[in-house]
Amino acid sequence: MDIDNQKTITDTIAQLSDIPQGIGNTAPDGTALPMPSTDNLKEIVDLCREIIFPGYFGQTPTSPESIKYHIGINVESLTRLLKQEIYSGLCFSDPEKHNNVATLRKAESTAVQFVAYLPELRRLLQGDVQALYNGDPASTSFSEIIFAYPAIKAISNYRIAHRLVELGVPLIPRVITEMAHSETGIDIHPGAQIGENFAIDHGTGVVIGATCIIGNNVKLYQGVTLGAKSFPLNDNGNPIKGVPRHPIIEDNVVIYAQATILGRITIGKNSTIGGNVWITENIPQNSKIVQKGAKNYI
Amino acid sequence: MDIDNQKTITDTIAQLSDIPQGIGNTAPDGTALPMPSTDNLKEIVDLCREIIFPGYFGQTPTSPESIKYHIGINVESLTRLLKQEIYSGLCFSDPEKHNNVATLRKAESTAVQFVAYLPELRRLLQGDVQALYNGDPASTSFSEIIFAYPAIKAISNYRIAHRLVELGVPLIPRVITEMAHSETGIDIHPGAQIGENFAIDHGTGVVIGATCIIGNNVKLYQGVTLGAKSFPLNDNGNPIKGVPRHPIIEDNVVIYAQATILGRITIGKNSTIGGNVWITENIPQNSKIVQKGAKNYI
Amino acid sequence: MDIDNQKTITDTIAQLSDIPQGIGNTAPDGTALPMPSTDNLKEIVDLCREIIFPGYFGQTPTSPESIKYHIGINVESLTRLLKQEIYSGLCFSDPEKHNNVATLRKAESTAVQFVAYLPELRRLLQGDVQALYNGDPASTSFSEIIFAYPAIKAISNYRIAHRLVELGVPLIPRVITEMAHSETGIDIHPGAQIGENFAIDHGTGVVIGATCIIGNNVKLYQGVTLGAKSFPLNDNGNPIKGVPRHPIIEDNVVIYAQATILGRITIGKNSTIGGNVWITENIPQNSKIVQKGAKNYI
Amino acid sequence: MDIDNQKTITDTIAQLSDIPQGIGNTAPDGTALPMPSTDNLKEIVDLCREIIFPGYFGQTPTSPESIKYHIGINVESLTRLLKQEIYSGLCFSDPEKHNNVATLRKAESTAVQFVAYLPELRRLLQGDVQALYNGDPASTSFSEIIFAYPAIKAISNYRIAHRLVELGVPLIPRVITEMAHSETGIDIHPGAQIGENFAIDHGTGVVIGATCIIGNNVKLYQGVTLGAKSFPLNDNGNPIKGVPRHPIIEDNVVIYAQATILGRITIGKNSTIGGNVWITENIPQNSKIVQKGAKNYI
Amino acid sequence: MDIDNQKTITDTIAQLSDIPQGIGNTAPDGTALPMPSTDNLKEIVDLCREIIFPGYFGQTPTSPESIKYHIGINVESLTRLLKQEIYSGLCFSDPEKHNNVATLRKAESTAVQFVAYLPELRRLLQGDVQALYNGDPASTSFSEIIFAYPAIKAISNYRIAHRLVELGVPLIPRVITEMAHSETGIDIHPGAQIGENFAIDHGTGVVIGATCIIGNNVKLYQGVTLGAKSFPLNDNGNPIKGVPRHPIIEDNVVIYAQATILGRITIGKNSTIGGNVWITENIPQNSKIVQKGAKNYI
Amino acid sequence: MDIDNQKTITDTIAQLSDIPQGIGNTAPDGTALPMPSTDNLKEIVDLCREIIFPGYFGQTPTSPESIKYHIGINVESLTRLLKQEIYSGLCFSDPEKHNNVATLRKAESTAVQFVAYLPELRRLLQGDVQALYNGDPASTSFSEIIFAYPAIKAISNYRIAHRLVELGVPLIPRVITEMAHSETGIDIHPGAQIGENFAIDHGTGVVIGATCIIGNNVKLYQGVTLGAKSFPLNDNGNPIKGVPRHPIIEDNVVIYAQATILGRITIGKNSTIGGNVWITENIPQNSKIVQKGAKNYI
Repeated sequence: MDIDNQKTITDTIAQLSDIPQGIGNTAPDGTALPMPSTDNLKEIVDLCREIIFPGYFGQTPTSPESIKYHIGINVESLTRLLKQEIYSGLCFSDPEKHNNVATLRKAESTAVQFVAYLPELRRLLQGDVQALYNGDPASTSFSEIIFAYPAIKAISNYRIAHRLVELGVPLIPRVITEMAHSETGIDIHPGAQIGENFAIDHGTGVVIGATCIIGNNVKLYQGVTLGAKSFPLNDNGNPIKGVPRHPIIEDNVVIYAQATILGRITIGKNSTIGGNVWITENIPQNSKIVQKGAKNYI
Repeated sequence: MDIDNQKTITDTIAQLSDIPQGIGNTAPDGTALPMPSTDNLKEIVDLCREIIFPGYFGQTPTSPESIKYHIGINVESLTRLLKQEIYSGLCFSDPEKHNNVATLRKAESTAVQFVAYLPELRRLLQGDVQALYNGDPASTSFSEIIFAYPAIKAISNYRIAHRLVELGVPLIPRVITEMAHSETGIDIHPGAQIGENFAIDHGTGVVIGATCIIGNNVKLYQGVTLGAKSFPLNDNGNPIKGVPRHPIIEDNVVIYAQATILGRITIGKNSTIGGNVWITENIPQNSKIVQKGAKNYI
Repeated sequence: MDIDNQKTITDTIAQLSDIPQGIGNTAPDGTALPMPSTDNLKEIVDLCREIIFPGYFGQTPTSPESIKYHIGINVESLTRLLKQEIYSGLCFSDPEKHNNVATLRKAESTAVQFVAYLPELRRLLQGDVQALYNGDPASTSFSEIIFAYPAIKAISNYRIAHRLVELGVPLIPRVITEMAHSETGIDIHPGAQIGENFAIDHGTGVVIGATCIIGNNVKLYQGVTLGAKSFPLNDNGNPIKGVPRHPIIEDNVVIYAQATILGRITIGKNSTIGGNVWITENIPQNSKIVQKGAKNYI
Repeated sequence: MDIDNQKTITDTIAQLSDIPQGIGNTAPDGTALPMPSTDNLKEIVDLCREIIFPGYFGQTPTSPESIKYHIGINVESLTRLLKQEIYSGLCFSDPEKHNNVATLRKAESTAVQFVAYLPELRRLLQGDVQALYNGDPASTSFSEIIFAYPAIKAISNYRIAHRLVELGVPLIPRVITEMAHSETGIDIHPGAQIGENFAIDHGTGVVIGATCIIGNNVKLYQGVTLGAKSFPLNDNGNPIKGVPRHPIIEDNVVIYAQATILGRITIGKNSTIGGNVWITENIPQNSKIVQKGAKNYI
Repeated sequence: MDIDNQKTITDTIAQLSDIPQGIGNTAPDGTALPMPSTDNLKEIVDLCREIIFPGYFGQTPTSPESIKYHIGINVESLTRLLKQEIYSGLCFSDPEKHNNVATLRKAESTAVQFVAYLPELRRLLQGDVQALYNGDPASTSFSEIIFAYPAIKAISNYRIAHRLVELGVPLIPRVITEMAHSETGIDIHPGAQIGENFAIDHGTGVVIGATCIIGNNVKLYQGVTLGAKSFPLNDNGNPIKGVPRHPIIEDNVVIYAQATILGRITIGKNSTIGGNVWITENIPQNSKIVQKGAKNYI
Repeated sequence: MDIDNQKTITDTIAQLSDIPQGIGNTAPDGTALPMPSTDNLKEIVDLCREIIFPGYFGQTPTSPESIKYHIGINVESLTRLLKQEIYSGLCFSDPEKHNNVATLRKAESTAVQFVAYLPELRRLLQGDVQALYNGDPASTSFSEIIFAYPAIKAISNYRIAHRLVELGVPLIPRVITEMAHSETGIDIHPGAQIGENFAIDHGTGVVIGATCIIGNNVKLYQGVTLGAKSFPLNDNGNPIKGVPRHPIIEDNVVIYAQATILGRITIGKNSTIGGNVWITENIPQNSKIVQKGAKNYI
């Protein structure tokens, strides 16, 4: 490398070594906070899937006897990894909690509470598999849905993440739903509340906001947004934080592709919302909404 | 770990070791069915790409002499992996076929038939590359499209998967198109029939349903849905399965971003469909459709 | 393998070993051109992120003293990999440049110029983090945005790629933005010009075309297209290349979900564009545009 | 590459593609025999060590409850890998056994017989650990010996391999003892018969021949050879095969460094053999042998 | 698997899950002690070699400026790994030290003391390289010795391990010298004291005992044993522990291949010991010892 | 880390960053020389073994047709890696050769010359396999020897390395034989000249010096040294370099375990040398030498 180039490099390193406020992950005492590990979080999700749907992912048990060992090992690994990641999440949101025995104990008990929820999580996901099967004329078996459908991936990650939200874990839930968002194009905020037998078809572009409440037996198609009606701003011109601002979708609602539903409104039960519509007001029960300009060619 | 936590873990493992019906992949005789390997399927697709577009992916041959060895090895690996995965797919859809010499023979002959199709697959993809080049003002060379365009990835996976559908392979085709869906946001059902010189621009959010029929020289933009008109339901409130339910797109049609086209309708040849429209009826040949409310601001 | 199958395989290998024009990456002299390495490009982006946001990715420094070593090593690796990939990019677009000392020297000086830009890149991304924080009621800290938001990933890749475009590097920038497109569903062409404090929410399906010009403090929601109005075609029926054909978005504009804005039009500063609208004409400053048929149910 | 070099390469490939008799692993029907996998064999040995000495190698169980799952999984993996390797070994020594259901069944039952021997193997190795501890003034604990002593590695591999010899498995045992030979310099033929509480100190250069019989409580130092007296040759000038030709070492014998003991002789119980001696005749019980020329300096 | 085989497996797992005393690594409170990681120890040795001989191993610095960053990072990694492994070593030898802040602090300060010794270690190894170069007619450069000679590997590991012995670290030093023993066949106990400019030629089979004292400028050939004269036993028939029992080798001594020197004797300075001799008494300064029976053929 | 510890680390890094003469691999112009890659060299040896003994190592061809592709690819990879490593070796011994087109051309032509030698290398190794089979009563087939015997590993590496010596390649041959030395304990200098049908039994501790000349049909046992008689020193007290100083072993000689044969002497053809002898004078043809003190017990 010629001397001028080398000098440019050296000078740039010096400049970059001076970290501005808010850019580097360094606590006031000069130490770095423990960051969540995306590899661990990926493994946590994989372990949950392997525990809940045995035989589809990871190593395959060959008999009821052997399943016991596999589930034992997998639950043990899950508990260990969760404890570690929950600890990182707690410290991330409050650096004071770092190097603190109470935080470790909290991380462990939270991990155990999550594990204790796995049978219920299995029951819920079983319902979602059933709903996806019923709702898709192209599906051929439960097994195909478990193994190959992006929606079940996105919903699994959401249900895992949402439980962690309920247990008071910061940051980690968001990373888990973003992993599914990246893989499937389905963006479900872990704070949303979603009932049983939930189905999404195709899914790319679906957005479900943080304060959404969704009932049982709801089905969404690709590109559906359940978002905030964003106009209300604070004095600085930014959206007001922390208030319920996303829709409530009651039981048995179907929403077709690309529909945009905004604000703290309610879509009444048994309603059907057609594709590409834009809704910002309450919809009564049993409604059928379609885009007015359906035959809109010249 | 404290004793209460340990007990919770142990109890949960016991609960989880009792697998409910329809959740675990265990055949009636207690053995697990062989599952397709997503790693193998990824390698199968990579091998096809390396064979069809030599020099862009994998190890680079340096002379016509050496290309021969590389294609020989790659075709051999492809045949071996395909045989294995087709076998898994056959058993997945019908557990009776497991541990059955006829199934192994069928898997081998199907893999060989797929390999024999590679020259035709190469011809088709060459046409798609040409169409993408012609249709994108930003593209600079065939090489750039082969190496870097998501559409060619999605179309390659579709054409591979569709051939496997024609050869009667279950499950595997769907997994192959889902791999491209995850990577590109383009969701093409492997059952769809698509003609020559097919182009997709940007692509995120494109959905092409299982019974679509698409002619030659068709071009789609991002967010286009060629879907089922979902209202017809059966007595249980679920979509009726197994009937032609997606559009027919004739030759030379262009469909712009976010257009939603639903049901077993026909878009006549040489037509242009504008962005964001919602179409559920036949469109005659040579039409130009745009959203009615184009100047729709207050 | 039975003899017929083996023969089919052997024949197909022979057919495939005869590479048609335009399919294989072989220069006229029979050698293969050096291809960009997607692994290297991924590492280049990761190194930029690790240098700019120290402590969030890769190995964690534990003190100001130690940060210096890490940044030194990372900048050195970055320079080496960039030089190599820029070299491949230059040869890719012009095979004459291969095995040419001037090309190597150009690759090195370009890599160094890129490195010298890192402090400015850090300043810009710091502004983007701030904008994302201000614009999302669900965000809890700068750290969460840096670590977990897909938009910051997509914007980082764009800003890296755009600088490479300015430095005259072919192909590589496109591959870098496609990597983010695949991960986030946000498709920003590296040629677009984007100002400071840029924010995207959710993001799946966003498309920003090659000749877009975007001002400061602009915010986009998912599914927004800033595209070309594609009808003007040349004599062959293909889009005319190389002319400004995408929108100009002035300062302080907000564009809501699924809006489609097409052609070389200008959205005046301080305007707000509602969701799902379709715009192909200039919009004056300070406008508020919403979809006409907002209450469009039957 | 210049044309002459390329031609040399091409010609050499053609020459090499013509495989002479006895060099390539190709059965008469043109298929390759399944070869043992050294990776699998390494894992088999590691699994045995992890099962027998839990907590020292591999993943660490944290409670009696959890040990059960780990041992369950490890025994299951061991059985599966052993079955596969024993199958390869059987086919290796007799190609007729390939693709033969009886061979698969034999492989499985042999693997299971090996597994059933693990508790006895544990008892024997526990005795060897005790003997190593007693015999080495520098050792500080059983744990140190289990974790760090090459002799325990070599003896473990020998005892595993010897059991496989007893079960009639060809080839595999030899590969397993060679693995330890490479790591430790201790070369024990798997056919040798070795009693309880066996100790080797340092060990490099130790050779124990195929027909050796070693009693209980025997200790060897580095460089000890228990070999064949090689002079008796057959008509072709090669050693005569298949007869007992290595020493019998009775109980409680100690043999010091570099001693060479050759032929089917007996070293009587309780004897001590000094370093660097060369013995080819029977030694009575309770003898103390030292090199005659001990004070052999000028 | 047939039922009898499955039952055998299940029964054996049950038997094996009952761990006998002294076999499993489980502390009285049921937790497992942290075990040293051989991967980490290998990396520790590699880092020392990379720091001391920059440019031969690992990533290559290209300028004095850049060497600084590499050494900074490598020293930092070394400190972190050493701290972790020293901690494991301390707990291994005394389980009471586990989960104890004082142990962590001791581990850190010990790691730092080791790091502070690196410049002296470099000086010593530089001397050993010089001695190996002078002593081997086949060596062509210092670089060849640093990069390719097994002796420098064995001596490096010994000098690292011996420093850790001096700093009071249990177990770890032994594992480090065993790593070199396995790779080179040279077995140097970390407790031995060895002076400057030490050389070993070929080396396979060399054994240097725990209480050896070796002066400056000493050279050994392959197969040399500096061992204990093992006959003195305690009442149980085992060697007496903890007393000086290996030779003292004074300055400028050369010992040829396969010589065996046993007991707490002294080889006087400037002496030469011939190959294959067996010595158990003091040798005066300036002696030349050769095997008496040198011309010992019939 | 406390402040004192941190300061110690920082100070030590500063000290270590000042590299003394002869320690770092830095050429006078400040750049690092390209070092040979031990990973590449390992792959080179593996490729040679896979080419020469097809079906035993690496991927298994299943038919004569397919072997052609595998050998083609393997020879191509071998040529590429050899060229790279020979280049490094040439620069290592003479830094002036770095960045020099003539060096690259020499590296390529040398690699090609080596490849052209592979058929002869195969013939020689086939003879060695035969000799090992004839000489070991415990061997059961050629296949067992090819797959599992350490001697064939050591002899293969020697024959590869010796050819590279003949072609004038520095450093690389030594590294290749050291790799086998580490694995097998057999230390053959690549400069030695060894005839056909060469056999080594067990092998640990065998040393064959740089100027040895060994005839056809020679067999060695473990621990045999063919070394220099080291007393003749130069004025500085170091061995005199560059003169023939190791034994000549004529055809049909057998040398038993631990024999030490030193100096430029000749062991006449058809002789047998017994174990543990020490020889420094010529031995006539047809001799039988045994250790005088064979019955040397008290």
